Amino acid sequence: MTRGFYIGRFQPFHNGHYSMVERIAEDVDELVLGIGSAGDSHSTRNPFTAGERIMMITKSLVDFDLVTYAVPIEDLERNSVWVSHVQSMSPDFDIAYSNNPLVIQLFHEAGVDVRQSPMFNREVLEGTELRERMIDDEDWEGLVPDPVVDVVEEANGIERLQMVNDSDSNGT
Amino acid sequence: MTRGFYIGRFQPFHNGHYSMVERIAEDVDELVLGIGSAGDSHSTRNPFTAGERIMMITKSLVDFDLVTYAVPIEDLERNSVWVSHVQSMSPDFDIAYSNNPLVIQLFHEAGVDVRQSPMFNREVLEGTELRERMIDDEDWEGLVPDPVVDVVEEANGIERLQMVNDSDSNGT
Amino acid sequence: MTRGFYIGRFQPFHNGHYSMVERIAEDVDELVLGIGSAGDSHSTRNPFTAGERIMMITKSLVDFDLVTYAVPIEDLERNSVWVSHVQSMSPDFDIAYSNNPLVIQLFHEAGVDVRQSPMFNREVLEGTELRERMIDDEDWEGLVPDPVVDVVEEANGIERLQMVNDSDSNGT
Amino acid sequence: MTRGFYIGRFQPFHNGHYSMVERIAEDVDELVLGIGSAGDSHSTRNPFTAGERIMMITKSLVDFDLVTYAVPIEDLERNSVWVSHVQSMSPDFDIAYSNNPLVIQLFHEAGVDVRQSPMFNREVLEGTELRERMIDDEDWEGLVPDPVVDVVEEANGIERLQMVNDSDSNGT
Amino acid sequence: MTRGFYIGRFQPFHNGHYSMVERIAEDVDELVLGIGSAGDSHSTRNPFTAGERIMMITKSLVDFDLVTYAVPIEDLERNSVWVSHVQSMSPDFDIAYSNNPLVIQLFHEAGVDVRQSPMFNREVLEGTELRERMIDDEDWEGLVPDPVVDVVEEANGIERLQMVNDSDSNGT
Amino acid sequence: MTRGFYIGRFQPFHNGHYSMVERIAEDVDELVLGIGSAGDSHSTRNPFTAGERIMMITKSLVDFDLVTYAVPIEDLERNSVWVSHVQSMSPDFDIAYSNNPLVIQLFHEAGVDVRQSPMFNREVLEGTELRERMIDDEDWEGLVPDPVVDVVEEANGIERLQMVNDSDSNGT
Repeated sequence: MTRGFYIGRFQPFHNGHYSMVERIAEDVDELVLGIGSAGDSHSTRNPFTAGERIMMITKSLVDFDLVTYAVPIEDLERNSVWVSHVQSMSPDFDIAYSNNPLVIQLFHEAGVDVRQSPMFNREVLEGTELRERMIDDEDWEGLVPDPVVDVVEEANGIERLQMVNDSDSNGT
Repeated sequence: MTRGFYIGRFQPFHNGHYSMVERIAEDVDELVLGIGSAGDSHSTRNPFTAGERIMMITKSLVDFDLVTYAVPIEDLERNSVWVSHVQSMSPDFDIAYSNNPLVIQLFHEAGVDVRQSPMFNREVLEGTELRERMIDDEDWEGLVPDPVVDVVEEANGIERLQMVNDSDSNGT
Repeated sequence: MTRGFYIGRFQPFHNGHYSMVERIAEDVDELVLGIGSAGDSHSTRNPFTAGERIMMITKSLVDFDLVTYAVPIEDLERNSVWVSHVQSMSPDFDIAYSNNPLVIQLFHEAGVDVRQSPMFNREVLEGTELRERMIDDEDWEGLVPDPVVDVVEEANGIERLQMVNDSDSNGT
Repeated sequence: MTRGFYIGRFQPFHNGHYSMVERIAEDVDELVLGIGSAGDSHSTRNPFTAGERIMMITKSLVDFDLVTYAVPIEDLERNSVWVSHVQSMSPDFDIAYSNNPLVIQLFHEAGVDVRQSPMFNREVLEGTELRERMIDDEDWEGLVPDPVVDVVEEANGIERLQMVNDSDSNGT
Repeated sequence: MTRGFYIGRFQPFHNGHYSMVERIAEDVDELVLGIGSAGDSHSTRNPFTAGERIMMITKSLVDFDLVTYAVPIEDLERNSVWVSHVQSMSPDFDIAYSNNPLVIQLFHEAGVDVRQSPMFNREVLEGTELRERMIDDEDWEGLVPDPVVDVVEEANGIERLQMVNDSDSNGT
Repeated sequence: MTRGFYIGRFQPFHNGHYSMVERIAEDVDELVLGIGSAGDSHSTRNPFTAGERIMMITKSLVDFDLVTYAVPIEDLERNSVWVSHVQSMSPDFDIAYSNNPLVIQLFHEAGVDVRQSPMFNREVLEGTELRERMIDDEDWEGLVPDPVVDVVEEANGIERLQMVNDSDSNGT
């Protein structure tokens, strides 16, 4: 039995993330999706709460033939203990997946097997692009799995993101 | 669709918790199990990490005909914001289940529908009893679902609990 | 112009505190009442929120011929910086009033003029006594200024204290 | 009896804030002025301590025919619990006043009645403008109530702001 | 080159600690003395600041033929990341020395070589005994290296400990 | 006996810092080097851990005829208590050395004798320059004492800095 760990902020969970899960599913039997910056919400960069992101992930992966866990990971603001923090909050895992250089470096120094993929970059870009479309009232629904649209709508997520983005732009 | 929220420390998840889930399953379609004091581990009162407790819960409920979410909730040490904290970390819920008077009071003041059951007391007592049996090398396996035995053994949980209990007893 | 600083938890503000203010009023033109452990509430030892305690103090002292400030002071959990923390949160003061040996020692090491009075002990005892009476449904209204009764009732404070005291007594 | 809540950083309290209080006074009997980022001081954006800001507000409003409370609110760095935090630190209020989109959104999601006014924007701009004038030794005294001039001078606030602004500009 | 790590609270540094260092010096070329609970001071259990404890250790070991480092370690209140925290604050070490069961267990789970000695228990008992003697004005100077007497006296440590102990005994 | 206090982040300790110590050594008998932002590491601005920085400083100053202490100081994120925090973590000192305007202002308001030197600016610039050279694989070894080269190499510090700098540049 092999278990993977895939960390992201999932703001929101989108098709790039979904493709990554498909790709990782070839390697592992179970997958933990670590929801980074879990305590953050209501900002341009992190509009959705951890609870909303758990819903997006779980509902999007429900028909997937893979045991998945969606685990919120609150920030500790201290890189040197981040791997231990993640390991204590997550079911035990064998391989970590990330394309973020800091995350790769931290897992590498801790002796954890970490794998990257060119696909990750696409995913990061899509997150920013997606939030910009939401802010500008452009089409975004096509870039995410259907259940994510529902979660965003139930949370009045577009209105929320547009409001908090005004705040971030103006200073306070 | 009705979703419930059941908070506990699940140190470890045992048959009393399992019975409560069976009881709650009559009311709801989905259930969030909030893992309290998620950042605590390696103490007499909280021997297991959040990750280990996620495994106990998920594996114990896998054949249950109920959609469940195991969500770690870190302590904020501030009762007045606890309900908001829980609501941000958890998928949205309609009913909270607890027999803890503080939890009931906090949900009540926040206008959340909260239900209690005589069964809860039994569960609290069993948690303490169970950890004492683990410390004293008495039989404990009969009081928990089978997958919990596996998780405890993989973590060398009995040795860990016995060691940290020595520390707590002696002072440092 | 002389300004005094009087620190307490004021859980709740009672006649002993009121007498202390009368006594301090002989020395000073203005008085800051520092509300300690301001972030704590909903526990046996700290049942009321900072906001509720601000109301108790302000309404009780409204007819007093003394300029007063009710200032919440959150705990920093670090004795060595406590005086600096208090000084940054409070209007500048000349004399501190306390009978708590730790508080006296900390102000003393920081070179702040600190005065004590035998009356303080009475006040501490009354706080505990008062909360016990509230828990046991015995008469407590006679021990506090009238406006405090109103604040406690608006907050359903007796019910709250009785509930959270159950929690503290049983463990969780 | 109606009580309002008006949140700001008041760095420093100026004529724009004063006008807002005059405007709000038409609606309410009592007003809480929540001093945001209360733990911050000695930076370009937040030069003054909470204690100094309490003095500015209280002295500026002393002749106002309105019961006011100046309440420091420390940051919790977690938007999802911010409203609960504010509600626990402040006397109970009926209406919140703000023109900050994030604050409006957070109160709105929590079901609190929140009102905005075009006057708020002016106020925000004035805060930044005012601190820049202080840094550049230009006239600033005309933009604030007289008691604020006294508080700034007692704290050697201009020197402080000019020094810390040097730090912020150079990096460290 | 072998470097050891020896963790303690050193409240204060006494002859039992000194003997342990003599014993460890047989194994290693360099020794890090990790000062635990570095942020705590002014309490019965932790009367001295980290700075005072650095002085006690450094002055007591100055003639020792061993390179030593006195490193304050602030508490993180999270056992699962404690080893990573220690490793980031301390020069790299090969062997940890402790007789505290929790510390042994945490290093053991992290794969760090940890050694214990019967001598440690003696040391723990002496810390408590020593502080009690200080509180009761009994002879304590004979139980500590001479430079520790100087540090305690410069800090007015006996007066401080006696004051804060009053606070701890009475509740607040 | 005079003891000085010299605060820096020492990321890494370089020849500019070394010259400052030479300069300060003319004034004092002992010198505390306070390692600022001690909890930060693995970022472009703060690549090295506190433990690594202790090694750099101690090994670089070993032949210096001056008693030195390398003391990690974790950030408290609150300027108003920073001096008290430093004073509790450090051996008692008579003079502080800094050219950082914020640090000078904070020590000045606390009544601590603080001295600056034109040399400090050079030092700040060199820190940034040095890290840029490390990132760009340009010559940096000539700008630091020899033992610093060893510490950086043992930590694979260049690889680490280049990796985390990628993260900081791309966002996450």
